[in-house]
Amino acid sequence: MLGQMMTAPLLISSLVEHAARYHGATEIVSVNTKEGVETTNWSQVEANARRLGSALTKLGLEPQARCGTIAWNNRRHLEIYFGTSGAGFVCHTINPRLFPEQLIYIINHAEDQVLFLDETFLPIAAKLKEHLPNLKHIVLMGPRDPAAAEQVPGLVFYDELLETGDPEYAWPSFDENTASSLCYTSGTTGNPKGVLYSHRSTLLHSLVANQKDTLALGAADVVLPVVPMFHVNAWGVPYCAAMVGARLVMPGPNLDGESLVNLIDQHRVTIALGVPTIWLGLLGHAKAAGSKLETLTRTVVGGSACPPSMIAQFREQYGVDTIHAWGMSEMSPLGSVNKPLAKHRDLPVEDQHRLRENQGRPPFGVELKIVDDTGAALPADGQSQGDLLVRGHWVLDSYFRMEDTQTLEDGWFNTGDVATLDEDGFMTIKDRSKDIIKSGGEWISSVELENIAIGHPKLADAAVVGVAHPKWDERPVLVAVAGDGESPTEEELLSYYDGKIATWQKPDRVVFMDVLPRNATGKVLKRNLRETYGDLLTG
Amino acid sequence: MLGQMMTAPLLISSLVEHAARYHGATEIVSVNTKEGVETTNWSQVEANARRLGSALTKLGLEPQARCGTIAWNNRRHLEIYFGTSGAGFVCHTINPRLFPEQLIYIINHAEDQVLFLDETFLPIAAKLKEHLPNLKHIVLMGPRDPAAAEQVPGLVFYDELLETGDPEYAWPSFDENTASSLCYTSGTTGNPKGVLYSHRSTLLHSLVANQKDTLALGAADVVLPVVPMFHVNAWGVPYCAAMVGARLVMPGPNLDGESLVNLIDQHRVTIALGVPTIWLGLLGHAKAAGSKLETLTRTVVGGSACPPSMIAQFREQYGVDTIHAWGMSEMSPLGSVNKPLAKHRDLPVEDQHRLRENQGRPPFGVELKIVDDTGAALPADGQSQGDLLVRGHWVLDSYFRMEDTQTLEDGWFNTGDVATLDEDGFMTIKDRSKDIIKSGGEWISSVELENIAIGHPKLADAAVVGVAHPKWDERPVLVAVAGDGESPTEEELLSYYDGKIATWQKPDRVVFMDVLPRNATGKVLKRNLRETYGDLLTG
Repeated sequence: MLGQMMTAPLLISSLVEHAARYHGATEIVSVNTKEGVETTNWSQVEANARRLGSALTKLGLEPQARCGTIAWNNRRHLEIYFGTSGAGFVCHTINPRLFPEQLIYIINHAEDQVLFLDETFLPIAAKLKEHLPNLKHIVLMGPRDPAAAEQVPGLVFYDELLETGDPEYAWPSFDENTASSLCYTSGTTGNPKGVLYSHRSTLLHSLVANQKDTLALGAADVVLPVVPMFHVNAWGVPYCAAMVGARLVMPGPNLDGESLVNLIDQHRVTIALGVPTIWLGLLGHAKAAGSKLETLTRTVVGGSACPPSMIAQFREQYGVDTIHAWGMSEMSPLGSVNKPLAKHRDLPVEDQHRLRENQGRPPFGVELKIVDDTGAALPADGQSQGDLLVRGHWVLDSYFRMEDTQTLEDGWFNTGDVATLDEDGFMTIKDRSKDIIKSGGEWISSVELENIAIGHPKLADAAVVGVAHPKWDERPVLVAVAGDGESPTEEELLSYYDGKIATWQKPDRVVFMDVLPRNATGKVLKRNLRETYGDLLTG
Repeated sequence: MLGQMMTAPLLISSLVEHAARYHGATEIVSVNTKEGVETTNWSQVEANARRLGSALTKLGLEPQARCGTIAWNNRRHLEIYFGTSGAGFVCHTINPRLFPEQLIYIINHAEDQVLFLDETFLPIAAKLKEHLPNLKHIVLMGPRDPAAAEQVPGLVFYDELLETGDPEYAWPSFDENTASSLCYTSGTTGNPKGVLYSHRSTLLHSLVANQKDTLALGAADVVLPVVPMFHVNAWGVPYCAAMVGARLVMPGPNLDGESLVNLIDQHRVTIALGVPTIWLGLLGHAKAAGSKLETLTRTVVGGSACPPSMIAQFREQYGVDTIHAWGMSEMSPLGSVNKPLAKHRDLPVEDQHRLRENQGRPPFGVELKIVDDTGAALPADGQSQGDLLVRGHWVLDSYFRMEDTQTLEDGWFNTGDVATLDEDGFMTIKDRSKDIIKSGGEWISSVELENIAIGHPKLADAAVVGVAHPKWDERPVLVAVAGDGESPTEEELLSYYDGKIATWQKPDRVVFMDVLPRNATGKVLKRNLRETYGDLLTG
């Protein structure tokens, strides 16, 4: 027997419809790619999204045709998010920092039929176009620009495309499991793989992301998503903000500390989201410029582990609560968020602060477990390290066009991370499973060793890799990049670990490089380092 | 093309599973029906719910068999919520304040096969049993009690029933649209009508109720649901609390001010939810006892309009934010919640306070509209009054066993309320549509006139009804109940309205009664008053 309640599909269009209906006049500030700032609102964003959906439909795209975007965080990108998915197409956000051959691979693998570009990326399109046989329309996100039109023959201009859309266009209704959007993961090995989200997974993710214990956006918030819209849907912020009618401040291309501090202070931002390196720049400029970041109440930090010193600086100097979160493209991305429990109120304040440093606990809708090499579950005791497996309403089932490849392990997705879980489900990422150092049967976290090294005043960058050792199988080696004008010795770097970790975990050696090898998205290529220094302790 | 994400049904069992897995040790305090307080936790609640689900299955109940409950807010009731629905049965909560003939009607209409009772209500069962032919098992919510066993032959004892359950019982999986729970509405006319919720509607409701701009429960909260579990699922609090692993304080049968203040102070309650009359008692005792309600940060008030003076008292004397909400059984119940917008920060503080007094705005998932007599939409201008229509993911489609009766109006549910909406979607309930007074083409809200009258120091109770008038069609009449030892005159009560409303809205007459006629759930029977005083202005 079924319940007797109304049933309607969970669709992305309903998010922006809600925002337009009940928060239509709520402002959205958008930094232009070239110069200046424009202000729009949810009502105009929804109207433009409808026009876009209509215009794309008129172009004759088939259902779930992929529409690529290479763009900054701005209002047109926001309209494209809702206009493509809302009309039943797939919004395929592409990371502009990828190498040309990766861009070609991704766009062809996705069979993108439309490509939306910010002006910044027009040269990329001009160069790659001949390698993209499926592409039917390249759309420059702006008004007509004669110089650009000359550069890319057949170029379509976004503002003109909107004019062809029907302003009375009504959002179509369809199965909520329909594909809505697509992101490719950028690993350090192999070809990128696509994660194909559905309307249902996106809405359930947004519903949970807005809960008090997760991102907790609300209509009184002014939200600054520094995390790019080409990076796992800006962690879902565009959807979450529409769902609650929050104000948005879209930072465009300038993510330096000065630009961000100015945006926060001018537009009274209450919550900002991004990776730790962004906040380094922001904290540096805020200090230099004397900004108190007065309206900012919280930052959400993800992407990589947030140094405890950063959390402390935000808290002590700016009264800002740093919310440590963890996730991945395959998880839409939300996997865990660090928010305290009722019992934590009774702890000494230092203990409360220390508890905020790990990656947090899973919200309803996600399950985490750690397993050993045989796949057996390990205890949630805060000590046992194992491979982190996840499942839930917004977790990948299979990669796009790899339906026949067995991706899951007994219904669980293997994150490739090694982690611990405590009895309350608080999770600490120890390392990537391929990077953890297995020394004499014990595991050493390269991440922990790097976090310590990077605190040394004479170092600009650091990586730790495990290299072969005749007795212990593997031992850690620190690859150090000295700061400008600094010449630290191996001796002083190794002694810097004293008292900070157990002696047997200290690196065996230090080697110096001028710069660390990184992939297009900034991840250190540890594989290269292991190849370079593989025989350091045996040779 | 479908997305490639994991899909699992949204089931009520997954809520308590999440709570047990990640918040297993989080305490649940439960006031016993007879005496004393017991403490359990989410892990034990889930284990008992599984045992119950297993035990009911072993009894041979068919899928979605209705299981009635007549019980206070306590831990066994919580276990029954999850144990029945989780195992695929329907949890049918019954209001013990109904008249015997209504109880018989409801239990027979629902065809309840099991009836769970708190000790308080055993006499009801003993008396009604012979009129309930479908009932197979009456379960007393406690351990074996020989006296009770004698009173009701065949009586089952909850604690013994659990013993028959399989502790390894796994929650079954099924269609998320399956019926999960049932509440009957208690109107002032006609037979009660059943609202049959589904697992999906319940989960979507809970997901939204936990958002920052709605009830916003979190794992750091200690939640006191004063609103009864037989009243629209305690506004969804049991589900919401499980979803985020909040601490619960279940107040049992004693809802007087002293008991509530003690619970709040002893168990460090952070949020309490209930109807305005409950808070009157609480505020009275807190003042008398000198409690500062130190840990309490917010109250959620619904069920009837919250007097502005109460909001102010909570804010000014206790630092408590009163969240005004509106809903109904047909809406699971959440329809609107009063939380501010970003732009409201710029208003003078008095204006900010005044904005908190209306019933608030709809969260994502609910749509509101107001229409005139012809069904045409009225403007959201804060002035136009019309019939309030709703639709959304947790709004009723048809009443239980009335599938063939046309309940909706063009896809919308008519709430029976008259309301205004402003441009931001903030809604003010003016009256029940059958109670609003239509005077010379203008509408007068009986609720507004009552709210003013009740502020008069000499009145204990008040109702306003419209009665026939030869010139104006209808005019308001105040039905007043004097306070103990008071003898207010008609003159002084009418002059009390001066300066508070427009002169033409003042009641034409005052009549006095010793007590107002009310139905079983405390609603004033205005129909009776209109019959009694119908010819007061014409006769």
